[in-house]
Amino acid sequence: MEEEPAAAVARNRKVVLRGYIDRAPREDDMELVDGGEVALRVPGDAGGGPAVLVRNLYLSCDPYMRGRMRDFQGSYIPPFKPGSPIEGFGVGRVVDSTHPGFSAGDIVSGMTGWEDYSLITKPEQLTKIQPSDIPLSYHLGLLGMPGFTAYVGFYEICSPKRGEFVFVSAASGAVGQIVGQLAKLDGCYVVGSAGTNQKVELLKEKFGFDAAFNYKEEPDLAAALKRYFPEGIDIYFENVGGPMLDAVLLNMRVHGRIAVCGMVSQHGVTAPAGIHNLYTLISKRVEMKGFIQSDYAHLFPQFVDDITKHYRDGKIVYVEDMSVGLESGPAAFAGLFSGKNVGKQVVCVSQD
Amino acid sequence: MEEEPAAAVARNRKVVLRGYIDRAPREDDMELVDGGEVALRVPGDAGGGPAVLVRNLYLSCDPYMRGRMRDFQGSYIPPFKPGSPIEGFGVGRVVDSTHPGFSAGDIVSGMTGWEDYSLITKPEQLTKIQPSDIPLSYHLGLLGMPGFTAYVGFYEICSPKRGEFVFVSAASGAVGQIVGQLAKLDGCYVVGSAGTNQKVELLKEKFGFDAAFNYKEEPDLAAALKRYFPEGIDIYFENVGGPMLDAVLLNMRVHGRIAVCGMVSQHGVTAPAGIHNLYTLISKRVEMKGFIQSDYAHLFPQFVDDITKHYRDGKIVYVEDMSVGLESGPAAFAGLFSGKNVGKQVVCVSQD
Repeated sequence: MEEEPAAAVARNRKVVLRGYIDRAPREDDMELVDGGEVALRVPGDAGGGPAVLVRNLYLSCDPYMRGRMRDFQGSYIPPFKPGSPIEGFGVGRVVDSTHPGFSAGDIVSGMTGWEDYSLITKPEQLTKIQPSDIPLSYHLGLLGMPGFTAYVGFYEICSPKRGEFVFVSAASGAVGQIVGQLAKLDGCYVVGSAGTNQKVELLKEKFGFDAAFNYKEEPDLAAALKRYFPEGIDIYFENVGGPMLDAVLLNMRVHGRIAVCGMVSQHGVTAPAGIHNLYTLISKRVEMKGFIQSDYAHLFPQFVDDITKHYRDGKIVYVEDMSVGLESGPAAFAGLFSGKNVGKQVVCVSQD
Repeated sequence: MEEEPAAAVARNRKVVLRGYIDRAPREDDMELVDGGEVALRVPGDAGGGPAVLVRNLYLSCDPYMRGRMRDFQGSYIPPFKPGSPIEGFGVGRVVDSTHPGFSAGDIVSGMTGWEDYSLITKPEQLTKIQPSDIPLSYHLGLLGMPGFTAYVGFYEICSPKRGEFVFVSAASGAVGQIVGQLAKLDGCYVVGSAGTNQKVELLKEKFGFDAAFNYKEEPDLAAALKRYFPEGIDIYFENVGGPMLDAVLLNMRVHGRIAVCGMVSQHGVTAPAGIHNLYTLISKRVEMKGFIQSDYAHLFPQFVDDITKHYRDGKIVYVEDMSVGLESGPAAFAGLFSGKNVGKQVVCVSQD
């Protein structure tokens, strides 16, 4: 039996969850630990099947991850393990592979760990990224789960028609900015809300929304919406829940649609504000529908084609908030819940 | 010019709204007044077009009428006028008609006043009832708006599939009893809730629900639903809103549907309890849709055919709570809001 040469090794840092929480995440709920040395080769006993070792390049910060920080097994996705690395979508470079579909040097996206190197034991869930002019990190946003959430939610749930009135909350976020731009491409009138004047400017100047407002400066959200939509709202892409949803319900048009997405899904975590105006679902015959993008996987190839074309044609732009270094991950993730990020929040672990 | 012979006259009593209210109706919000004598002939100046004078036989008590008792113009139907008769669905006998489609003696259904005789100035909105073996008052329930609400809500909004788990609240009411029986005919498993043990017995013994419970005897509605639906609820026909809706949201299955109907529409009238569990719309990808039966008028003939056949085949039964005499109308209507009625509440003004 031939002896293998000793593999090169590298230091592997990890961002781990300290313990379960029942509120919005804070930076110190996570901690950067030294994971010791990792051999830069897939070990012989890696889970019994083929595996891929990746160098993580970009990690995605997504609001849904908050749900995995609580001790609750009943969700569609299991909780993180305290003391183990956070998991999320990432883009990485293959260092070694025992799977015939991947070779060293390939760039892949998929579920990975918040660490320098991850051993992926279900490589069939990885997607190989072909070299192109599109920034690699966009595979976590524009061409990743947030973009697909926007695409599926807008086209499959909202059924838009030219000339309809569309409102998007959290509109400058990873999902909202795409919803608004798709709605404009479809000939809709689009208004977005955000939490700072800087984001409001971005919505109007960069993403081409017809109008936008800072919800923190509006003492009466229902009155604000009435001002921006004197004829009412046909489509609401719901990203925030709470008082904004209640205000929107009062401003819906007959046969309106509400796609329910995003942070409202976290309302089970803490005692959420009650929604009081659901009676308008009847008087206006409104459809309100929750969705998860992964139910629509059959549409993913079409999504990639459509959005890539729009991007190359200059019809869609994307704004990221890039935080540099694995050690910046906890603050970047916690910042999502106070609206610190401007655009899609990504952590750059390494550029090569 | 030939002089017409003097028309016969009759005493016309009316049930009028005393003033706008902002809470559940009480008997003394309405009052029986003497409307003086009415000539039993369509007057020559009746609104400029053809008109029909009807002797009201049966009047319908429906929860949506509460919405017309408040001073609010923004609904899909305008408010009543204080001092004028309550309006609602009714069945009557034509006394005189200047419309070619109706003759004295015809039995008609449609919007009428809470009075002995009503002059209908939009007779094109009346429907002629052909003589049959079906009780006339059923045209206000089984074959009327409540029945059509059940039919449209169940088939168009809930999209039932054989074997699915169906929950109906206010299940012994005018709409609920039909929803449950249609669901059984479609091969679903059906559970209903009601507010007395007598109604619970009715659901199980008369309407064939698989199970039923008295919600007033359940300290934890979510736990009760978990007991009756260990695998969760596919379809919820929502008639009550509030804590029951919140409890149902916690028990929905993936891709479940909620048809929003009925009294929840009145929650705008007073400060409603907040709904806290909408986040499950996402985790379970639930569709929640409000509807109004009148949007589906194209299905009415099919509804009448289907339900008449089921009734004649003995596959659907209907329970009415008949209150006798126009003077009993205010108490009968107010009773809806404390659950006094057992089955569809109707007021019999006259039998001939």
